[in-house]
Amino acid sequence: MTLYIDLANMISSRIEQGLYRPGDRLPSVRALSVEHGVSLSTVQQAYRHLEDQGMATPRPKSGYFVPPSRQKPELPMVNRAAQRPLDVSQWDNVLELISIPPGSPVLQLGRGMPDISSPTLKPLLRSISRLSRRQSVIELSYGCINGDPALREQISRLMLDSGCQIPAEDIVTTTGCHEALSAAIGATCKPGDVIAVDSPSFHGVMQALKGFGMKALELPTDPLTGISLEALELALEQWPIKAIQLTPTCNNPLGYIMPDANKRALLELAQRYDVAIIEDDVYGELAYSYPRPRTIKSYDEDGRVLLCSSFSKTLAPGLRIGWIAPGRYLQKILHLKYIGTGMAAQLPQLALAEYIAAGHYEPHLRRMRSQYARNRDLMTNWVSRYFPPGTRVSQPDGGFMLWIELDRQFDSQRLNRALLPHAIQIAPGSIFSATGKYRNCLRLNYATKATAEIEDAVRKVGETVAQLLASPD
Amino acid sequence: MTLYIDLANMISSRIEQGLYRPGDRLPSVRALSVEHGVSLSTVQQAYRHLEDQGMATPRPKSGYFVPPSRQKPELPMVNRAAQRPLDVSQWDNVLELISIPPGSPVLQLGRGMPDISSPTLKPLLRSISRLSRRQSVIELSYGCINGDPALREQISRLMLDSGCQIPAEDIVTTTGCHEALSAAIGATCKPGDVIAVDSPSFHGVMQALKGFGMKALELPTDPLTGISLEALELALEQWPIKAIQLTPTCNNPLGYIMPDANKRALLELAQRYDVAIIEDDVYGELAYSYPRPRTIKSYDEDGRVLLCSSFSKTLAPGLRIGWIAPGRYLQKILHLKYIGTGMAAQLPQLALAEYIAAGHYEPHLRRMRSQYARNRDLMTNWVSRYFPPGTRVSQPDGGFMLWIELDRQFDSQRLNRALLPHAIQIAPGSIFSATGKYRNCLRLNYATKATAEIEDAVRKVGETVAQLLASPD
Repeated sequence: MTLYIDLANMISSRIEQGLYRPGDRLPSVRALSVEHGVSLSTVQQAYRHLEDQGMATPRPKSGYFVPPSRQKPELPMVNRAAQRPLDVSQWDNVLELISIPPGSPVLQLGRGMPDISSPTLKPLLRSISRLSRRQSVIELSYGCINGDPALREQISRLMLDSGCQIPAEDIVTTTGCHEALSAAIGATCKPGDVIAVDSPSFHGVMQALKGFGMKALELPTDPLTGISLEALELALEQWPIKAIQLTPTCNNPLGYIMPDANKRALLELAQRYDVAIIEDDVYGELAYSYPRPRTIKSYDEDGRVLLCSSFSKTLAPGLRIGWIAPGRYLQKILHLKYIGTGMAAQLPQLALAEYIAAGHYEPHLRRMRSQYARNRDLMTNWVSRYFPPGTRVSQPDGGFMLWIELDRQFDSQRLNRALLPHAIQIAPGSIFSATGKYRNCLRLNYATKATAEIEDAVRKVGETVAQLLASPD
Repeated sequence: MTLYIDLANMISSRIEQGLYRPGDRLPSVRALSVEHGVSLSTVQQAYRHLEDQGMATPRPKSGYFVPPSRQKPELPMVNRAAQRPLDVSQWDNVLELISIPPGSPVLQLGRGMPDISSPTLKPLLRSISRLSRRQSVIELSYGCINGDPALREQISRLMLDSGCQIPAEDIVTTTGCHEALSAAIGATCKPGDVIAVDSPSFHGVMQALKGFGMKALELPTDPLTGISLEALELALEQWPIKAIQLTPTCNNPLGYIMPDANKRALLELAQRYDVAIIEDDVYGELAYSYPRPRTIKSYDEDGRVLLCSSFSKTLAPGLRIGWIAPGRYLQKILHLKYIGTGMAAQLPQLALAEYIAAGHYEPHLRRMRSQYARNRDLMTNWVSRYFPPGTRVSQPDGGFMLWIELDRQFDSQRLNRALLPHAIQIAPGSIFSATGKYRNCLRLNYATKATAEIEDAVRKVGETVAQLLASPD
């Protein structure tokens, strides 16, 4: 990283720590130059960078100030539960989102893509490059059905940070988190079964329920604390629920982290009613807080939690390496993996094992977490600035997704059609529910470095939203 | 390839074409040296190579002769059909086969592994290596749900050789042929449905039926011409069959190629009874004959054939790239792919597209076909030599698998246990049936270059078979 970025990060972290408060004058260019032994122009560059990010405001002849704290936009409302298990639809809209090939000129503001341009990825790519050249049976043949042992060892160590003590032999690698989640659903439920889910919920899981012919019971979900335990308990009383599927840590799309007490209480409910928990932790390592939050799995004592994750959000989805710690369902998961894909690709598994073992993963995570945390603030500011008043916005504690709620009459699919000529695509809220409930919501991605192009796109989305609200039809 | 190998291949192909018959004298070393403008020692090397392969026999002071044609071992018997749809078991035995990690000291004589040591693979590995280094969004992000367009274009061209005209947009790439087959079964059948299969049949399909809760109707299958059409027609009359799943070209494990007339007749039956055909063509490009055989799909006019294949047998399974041409089931397949894996890895898809477009794939296939054809003869000879009299052996027309049938009382799982101390593993016949029917059979792989080590292993297997036959318990 260049010097001025380091300096800008230092200043912004002091602002975040409250050392400088909204309206405060920031240290002069000269003072910082002396204090840090850098040139005046480096300090000026740092301030310009902070200005671009909305973290500092210049006043003529007075220097730089912390901008007045903007009123945080209101949170999205808690969904009204459907009160009954539903068949899942919405495939057409999901298909629209995932049909755009990579490298297309369309700016995909809605997809769950991490920033894959970080230099901290390079050692991984070098490993892939080197391993691929040696033409060894290890990379090119069928691997062990459980997955590469060295990688499973590393995953076992990583999971200690989330409070989990899971030996490598209880972990199975998969082709992305999709395969992990699908296998988890297949191992715990049968066609026709009812699965309780947080809502809004990841469209991949919704579609899996559709594919398997299962029913989704969407539960009210608080945008700060997650799935309602009271509603869950009532549902467990009322319906023959077989599993609870949720993303409690850095939720997709809402970004909240369910408090530890709620995680424990949810597990107790699952024990009392003897249902499985399918815990999607795919964004868990991207929590902005340190140490990373605990998983529900970390409290699990009787193997009823199937913890699903992948490197798709922390590193790159193109690797297609996920994993599952399936507890008591291990044998079923191995069978489902065998019939579904046979095995996960060996080469990325071996390269990942090397990358993590060599200590490259932690610094990468630190960098991405801080980038995503900064970008959350920027994106929130942009939405506040460019979207119509009354727009509700999530307050993510991790990951790189913002959930935006508009007037109840708004139609985000119509928004996507209106954005087509501008080559911008957002994720319509409807795909995060079984039956298209969140049409007035949308998901935005803030993973990539905040550029003028992205700010322009957000402004264009905001303007289009305003136009559509002004001309309902 | 070196000169003497070229020359040896030329001579052996003349023998195969019948220009020289068993007992005939082959051209003298001097004559060949003049005819081909190569040194005497090159010709001698070529003859020694042919001698090693059992294609030429030296007689002192008389030169080289075509060896007397060995009596071919008898073919395996046609299985007796179960006459009713069966639930599938055998998972434990499959798990045993696939649990050995690559690089293990166990010689896996039973697995479906191609030879991955050929220098013709190098351009592919170079592509992977180069593409992985550029850290581009194309390789690292989510690809288009259908799969990489450039690779689908190449697959579309390759399939012309099998008589198929399928545009790239009707092809979907998958994570290996496993995903293609699983999705094909999921798209055409529901839990409880009956699927007709050839028998013995690929264990991956058997286990998929088990996983989905479907029933297998195993049909009598001729070791030279494939599934019995008479039996199929009777079955279609008698049972509510939803799909026919078979591997008609270079069958696994029997190696036969179903005649074109039978392929057409099978399609007509499927049309008459309105059932889908799931055609596994994963070994189809490894037929020893040229041009490669037609697929059933090539006769398909109403989109009822789902053609499944991959690069796992022709290049390397570790790539995990397969594909499916699903005809009228395209939309269902896309949904199943989305929930199963999300997408196939981008990097190997892009590298494969480059490799094929640059013209590297055809020469590679030619080389592997001729290696596998030679190895089939060697392996057949070894089995004839080292296994007890009465051993029945398949006569594969493609691929790299030999199917061996022993006395009806023989137990190939017991054989595997007895081979454990010798660090040799075969594939027990039981896993190729729903209910463990072929316990007296086994599958051997002859893909890798025929070495003394492999000959020793085959001898050890043959000796162990004889011991077990002598001491039944």
